[in-house]
Amino acid sequence: MKSFSSADSDLLEEIILHRRDVRGNRFLDKAIPQKVLDKILYAGVNAPSVGFSQPWEFVLIRDTDRKQAIKASFTVENRKEAAVFNLQRQESYKKLKLEGIHEAPVNIAVFYKPCEHPVLGQSSMKEVGRYSVVCAVQNMWLMARALNIGLGWVSILDPQKVKQILNAPQENQLVAYLCLGYVDYFYQNPELEQLNWEQRKDFRDLVKEECY
Amino acid sequence: MKSFSSADSDLLEEIILHRRDVRGNRFLDKAIPQKVLDKILYAGVNAPSVGFSQPWEFVLIRDTDRKQAIKASFTVENRKEAAVFNLQRQESYKKLKLEGIHEAPVNIAVFYKPCEHPVLGQSSMKEVGRYSVVCAVQNMWLMARALNIGLGWVSILDPQKVKQILNAPQENQLVAYLCLGYVDYFYQNPELEQLNWEQRKDFRDLVKEECY
Repeated sequence: MKSFSSADSDLLEEIILHRRDVRGNRFLDKAIPQKVLDKILYAGVNAPSVGFSQPWEFVLIRDTDRKQAIKASFTVENRKEAAVFNLQRQESYKKLKLEGIHEAPVNIAVFYKPCEHPVLGQSSMKEVGRYSVVCAVQNMWLMARALNIGLGWVSILDPQKVKQILNAPQENQLVAYLCLGYVDYFYQNPELEQLNWEQRKDFRDLVKEECY
Repeated sequence: MKSFSSADSDLLEEIILHRRDVRGNRFLDKAIPQKVLDKILYAGVNAPSVGFSQPWEFVLIRDTDRKQAIKASFTVENRKEAAVFNLQRQESYKKLKLEGIHEAPVNIAVFYKPCEHPVLGQSSMKEVGRYSVVCAVQNMWLMARALNIGLGWVSILDPQKVKQILNAPQENQLVAYLCLGYVDYFYQNPELEQLNWEQRKDFRDLVKEECY
């Protein structure tokens, strides 16, 4: 049985701590070799999935016109989102660069594809199928960082619009839209923490013993 | 800027490939030291979260009576789940051990706690708050494996029952119920793959270029 050392778990911690959500102003105009991209996708398909259902599909997007169509959805949703904040926050919000659709050489749309037969473990909590897909995304995110590649998750999109643009089957659900590329640097801390948009929560406040 | 080597990304791949969903018949009766548990939780709170909202809470459960109450919910849901399969599958299903609630020294209920103010990036896709919590779970799962600790995700539970048992606030949502402990061994392949319950999907069928 494979046994890992404390140096191994410390290295994993380093990768976890250095992972960042990367936006467009950091991406370099440098292609990701197919072999490197495959290593990231391989990390994804080896994520856990409920009942070993592997309910994920990945669409790789590089075409400028297609990116432009996705970006148009971002622009509409971004305008709507700005309006949910108070006036002071709206000013800060408008200064943020929140996606890297064009700047990243590769975008990956990650879909949940529901299984046609009943899935073991998915009767009581239907959402665990989509959660399996999120586990795949997190594996990809960590692997990208270990390969010194930046990844940004863009959630300011209309999932129905993205489905139309990619001609996705009716039953598929968009879980994540990712932008990947080499970067000039990774921020030391999460950008929204540095900007004081949100404060880091105290570890001890988040962990309860036995019950609330 | 921290740069990782190809040995580092290969080690991450090893951890990803050796991670297993662990059930009760593998757990050893051996306590997890607090420091080790903290390292797993620390991996969780350093996951990505939409708008740096960190919308996660963790309840550590060790008490036998509390575990018994959770197990009772499993038993009810497990009976319901068996009925969704055809007769041949039902026979196989009944032979499977699908949880390790009592056998694992520590259980962790992982909740999504909605933020009280608007969250950056959560207007167009509300579900990304819960997806952040899943990213935390996947970080914990990988860190547990790197520490040679088994983790099993039990999804055959009634989330409302679990909330009642743990006295969780009304607004919280159960995302995952995890069983953790040292193990006698980790399977070489996912158990459901070994049993031929589901086949492994072909990598190339899951990846599309540009669109469907």
